[in-house]
Amino acid sequence: MSTISVAILMGSKSDLPLMEAAAQTLAELGVAAELRVMSAHRTPERVREYVSGAPARGVKVFICGAGGAAHLAGAVAAHTTLPVIGVPLARTPLAGHDALLATVQMPSGMPVATVAIDGASNAGLLAAQILAVGDPELARRIRAAREARRLRVIADDEALQSR
Amino acid sequence: MSTISVAILMGSKSDLPLMEAAAQTLAELGVAAELRVMSAHRTPERVREYVSGAPARGVKVFICGAGGAAHLAGAVAAHTTLPVIGVPLARTPLAGHDALLATVQMPSGMPVATVAIDGASNAGLLAAQILAVGDPELARRIRAAREARRLRVIADDEALQSR
Amino acid sequence: MSTISVAILMGSKSDLPLMEAAAQTLAELGVAAELRVMSAHRTPERVREYVSGAPARGVKVFICGAGGAAHLAGAVAAHTTLPVIGVPLARTPLAGHDALLATVQMPSGMPVATVAIDGASNAGLLAAQILAVGDPELARRIRAAREARRLRVIADDEALQSR
Amino acid sequence: MSTISVAILMGSKSDLPLMEAAAQTLAELGVAAELRVMSAHRTPERVREYVSGAPARGVKVFICGAGGAAHLAGAVAAHTTLPVIGVPLARTPLAGHDALLATVQMPSGMPVATVAIDGASNAGLLAAQILAVGDPELARRIRAAREARRLRVIADDEALQSR
Amino acid sequence: MSTISVAILMGSKSDLPLMEAAAQTLAELGVAAELRVMSAHRTPERVREYVSGAPARGVKVFICGAGGAAHLAGAVAAHTTLPVIGVPLARTPLAGHDALLATVQMPSGMPVATVAIDGASNAGLLAAQILAVGDPELARRIRAAREARRLRVIADDEALQSR
Amino acid sequence: MSTISVAILMGSKSDLPLMEAAAQTLAELGVAAELRVMSAHRTPERVREYVSGAPARGVKVFICGAGGAAHLAGAVAAHTTLPVIGVPLARTPLAGHDALLATVQMPSGMPVATVAIDGASNAGLLAAQILAVGDPELARRIRAAREARRLRVIADDEALQSR
Amino acid sequence: MSTISVAILMGSKSDLPLMEAAAQTLAELGVAAELRVMSAHRTPERVREYVSGAPARGVKVFICGAGGAAHLAGAVAAHTTLPVIGVPLARTPLAGHDALLATVQMPSGMPVATVAIDGASNAGLLAAQILAVGDPELARRIRAAREARRLRVIADDEALQSR
Amino acid sequence: MSTISVAILMGSKSDLPLMEAAAQTLAELGVAAELRVMSAHRTPERVREYVSGAPARGVKVFICGAGGAAHLAGAVAAHTTLPVIGVPLARTPLAGHDALLATVQMPSGMPVATVAIDGASNAGLLAAQILAVGDPELARRIRAAREARRLRVIADDEALQSR
Repeated sequence: MSTISVAILMGSKSDLPLMEAAAQTLAELGVAAELRVMSAHRTPERVREYVSGAPARGVKVFICGAGGAAHLAGAVAAHTTLPVIGVPLARTPLAGHDALLATVQMPSGMPVATVAIDGASNAGLLAAQILAVGDPELARRIRAAREARRLRVIADDEALQSR
Repeated sequence: MSTISVAILMGSKSDLPLMEAAAQTLAELGVAAELRVMSAHRTPERVREYVSGAPARGVKVFICGAGGAAHLAGAVAAHTTLPVIGVPLARTPLAGHDALLATVQMPSGMPVATVAIDGASNAGLLAAQILAVGDPELARRIRAAREARRLRVIADDEALQSR
Repeated sequence: MSTISVAILMGSKSDLPLMEAAAQTLAELGVAAELRVMSAHRTPERVREYVSGAPARGVKVFICGAGGAAHLAGAVAAHTTLPVIGVPLARTPLAGHDALLATVQMPSGMPVATVAIDGASNAGLLAAQILAVGDPELARRIRAAREARRLRVIADDEALQSR
Repeated sequence: MSTISVAILMGSKSDLPLMEAAAQTLAELGVAAELRVMSAHRTPERVREYVSGAPARGVKVFICGAGGAAHLAGAVAAHTTLPVIGVPLARTPLAGHDALLATVQMPSGMPVATVAIDGASNAGLLAAQILAVGDPELARRIRAAREARRLRVIADDEALQSR
Repeated sequence: MSTISVAILMGSKSDLPLMEAAAQTLAELGVAAELRVMSAHRTPERVREYVSGAPARGVKVFICGAGGAAHLAGAVAAHTTLPVIGVPLARTPLAGHDALLATVQMPSGMPVATVAIDGASNAGLLAAQILAVGDPELARRIRAAREARRLRVIADDEALQSR
Repeated sequence: MSTISVAILMGSKSDLPLMEAAAQTLAELGVAAELRVMSAHRTPERVREYVSGAPARGVKVFICGAGGAAHLAGAVAAHTTLPVIGVPLARTPLAGHDALLATVQMPSGMPVATVAIDGASNAGLLAAQILAVGDPELARRIRAAREARRLRVIADDEALQSR
Repeated sequence: MSTISVAILMGSKSDLPLMEAAAQTLAELGVAAELRVMSAHRTPERVREYVSGAPARGVKVFICGAGGAAHLAGAVAAHTTLPVIGVPLARTPLAGHDALLATVQMPSGMPVATVAIDGASNAGLLAAQILAVGDPELARRIRAAREARRLRVIADDEALQSR
Repeated sequence: MSTISVAILMGSKSDLPLMEAAAQTLAELGVAAELRVMSAHRTPERVREYVSGAPARGVKVFICGAGGAAHLAGAVAAHTTLPVIGVPLARTPLAGHDALLATVQMPSGMPVATVAIDGASNAGLLAAQILAVGDPELARRIRAAREARRLRVIADDEALQSR
């Protein structure tokens, strides 16, 4: 579990409270990740250098969270052919509608795997699902987490029936 | 290239002209895929059975295209923990806005990797990127395709300069 | 009044405060209903089993509340030809716009009777109206409730005139 | 099959090509319906009189199609406690978004069962489903139609596999 | 000033805090108005009777405020050829977008003079402007109010310069 | 009928085919109007001069049609306290949504009576309704036109019944 | 630094808290600006006079902030060929969506350089960038501010790594 | 007129028919510009190199046109402090709404001067206005073009009056 296999990037440290959910979901599944602050606009060189060097550090999937004219996921995708997951963040008065469209409507040849607005936890899970394609043990842990969720819904249903 | 590793599902045969772009992109990258018509609403059992049996056939990633209240990707995600890619299709007067929201806004624990409206080609490429995490040769082909795109843009630029 | 004739389903127990209004409206009209937590994505088998077995328990109408990529009503509709009422819930930053489109824009052959965003009370009333097509006594109670509302508006108007 | 049990209303005769799909779906299920042109705004008295007199003629469900500031379903609902189904029509540059909101966002106590934009066929099916709550033979025909749709999707899938 | 010349209608007494601004604006301009609660859906007969009888009481302009599937202005317009002003109210999670479209997108032959979301004060002013077409003294008071606004902006500007 | 009482302004001569419907509706009601091309942005002085001089020519109501960031109605309102009717035109890829918001969301003290997107005919009728507040003969003609519309809907309904 | 080179206009003094960010950004870059309250609708003459006289006072760029049917930037643009920057403000229930469209969708020949909703600080920076085209020293200060931002992001990233 | 002072960039050669309007407007004003095809995603290095080297070639303003998740203007802004003008293009089923939000909603410190959807001609004019701040002769030509537009509107108005 020591090598970093997922890089979680965000454009501003103010995105940290939202994006930490991705790291937590990955940690629960035993996947090592690192959280980094870098900006497609303010530190484009740093994004490029980090993305270029990431495979050598073991990174296999990127998660990028950004709000407004959310370009971070696209900027990362421009420098790698590894899978890039985008998390549109609700940071402006438009409630994430802007970030959703700026993240998902990518041109041909440059996909960003977009999850729900503020959906950092699902981004972590999707990254794990991608890694699990080649990691049966991780796949098993993901199925166990799925099963736990299933049982929780059933328990909630039963609690409601017996109230 | 003989084993199927990507399943491309669509809710209606009328989606075929749009969704074939995913199969074509995968074929160009040497990834075997199959196109299937099945509906989250009209054939829910068939979706469940197909998804449950897909891993045994070698399927590692699902691509699901649907319009309107696009539930197919979510319905597939409910039956597997393999990565599921959703393609919102512009099939109603709302121009795909409905399909985009119905595909991307998934609840916690159930991500769908959403690409652009009508973005079937990018869905194919994303599926290949996911498979390439564990397949260096496929990764090489993806990088070559990326490089070809890069050169095409440069050629277009040069043609424009010399006109 | 002892047999359950309306099933009120919600995807998460956190939807209970909103969805209880449907049960309350039905109770005021003397219609027995049960509130259940089950998820189109987390417990698809349970949804299928519940829906399949519901007619035997007397269920004649389903009410389904969900937010975001709201698939519950559609998933229920896929397993029954009884009327299904969908309540889009405002649970994401998009204020229910996502749930509305994911609920109402259903494909041909699979209608969901959609009510207003967060309109659980109206969903209860609509279920009662459907049952009342074959139940003159229930129809009478619905008309009485309508009349009571009418008088309340008139009373409000008169109170305003005399202030 | 001779008594009218569903009234299909539209605000303008130009809505007829869209709304006839409701009548056709009902006819295929053996449900007698009548198509009527009346306007919430241009002929409010006529709407009121028709709706008041409809039960005596056997009408048990209303289907109302309208575009723009689509008020017809709401105006009918104001005069009856029978179930009212609304079909938002894409008749303005806003592509039915206006009609959808004007139809579905009804106030408490006055539900309109809204189907998809231009979804007249589903409106017919929903009306039949409502009538079938008390008509086992109709319920059987609806299930048969559902099964036929299911088989059609399977046939489409098989045709795709064998091409 | 004793005869009522403007009727200010709202669908629910909960709209009163918003709609009183219309009455206040009219009062400041010396125009007599009455505030009434009546609902297009809950009390359609009362709306019809009130509107039919209003001219005899001196009413020359209607102001109608409603939220959601805002039909009140349209329902009033259906019963009169006097000018009808619609105020879309932000009463649902859609922030008045629904009420705006349901108010303004009226069909041919049935205009509603729509003002801004929650714009009751402007509705009052517009009613006064309409009355002032035939009332030079009222026109003079409106121009004076306009001039007062102009001076207030200039005073604000000067206060800002001298801070 | 010789004095002009309604001024119909448009920002560009390309708006003429849409805006002529206002003139035609007014002509049918016996109201004299003039169509003018002037732009809030390209000829602001001309707008100001025309609006200032219009009352002397008999103008009592303005109708302004514009698309995109539709400012013409607001610019006219800034120079007069006569009633101003705005017609948002669908002239950009946003299908009139931009023009609607730019026309209707006016600030306090500056109402624009907004009609439907591309609703020039209704703008003409609204102008006539405003003039008719002080013109019983015009009011009679408007009621007759309303009655003719009513009869047309009834005739359409009867034609449908007898086909 | 004593001559005013940027005019920051707003339609209402209530916009001051939002618009002061433009002045502050300019002050940090050593650019003299003045904040003024004037309204496209309430004080159109004052806008015209101010804009006409501004070049003589040294003004080279205008920044205009307004909400709702935001016309101020367009009204200023109508009276000058100097660059005009528009700041759409989120002042209505539509969260600035109305102001964005009313500001940016200007007709041919009349551009408004629009920045993000509530983006007054960026408006200030853009004004400085425009002035810096002819002012190498200002350009140097802008680059220094850019560099400071870059270093801040890097510091945030390093702080996150070392926590 | 020989030195290039405006760079007009587009993400794909298919944008050329729309973006040539910018070049044409600049040419009419005597401003030298060059049209280049380069992509924020497909050729990020080339964008960086071109932008870095552009000042040495005389470029003072950038115009960037892109559709969908339109990142080109933002990517250019990340590499320069010269003014960057963004043209959102209507290239997807969302009719430019996606490109508008992805272009205008830029984060603090990184403005993009956004013009209307498909507004390439206005982008050219805005670039000229920016250059004209320090070029009185160009300013004169811009004012002459403005005057020509003004006269055209007046001529259109007069032609309409005399038809």
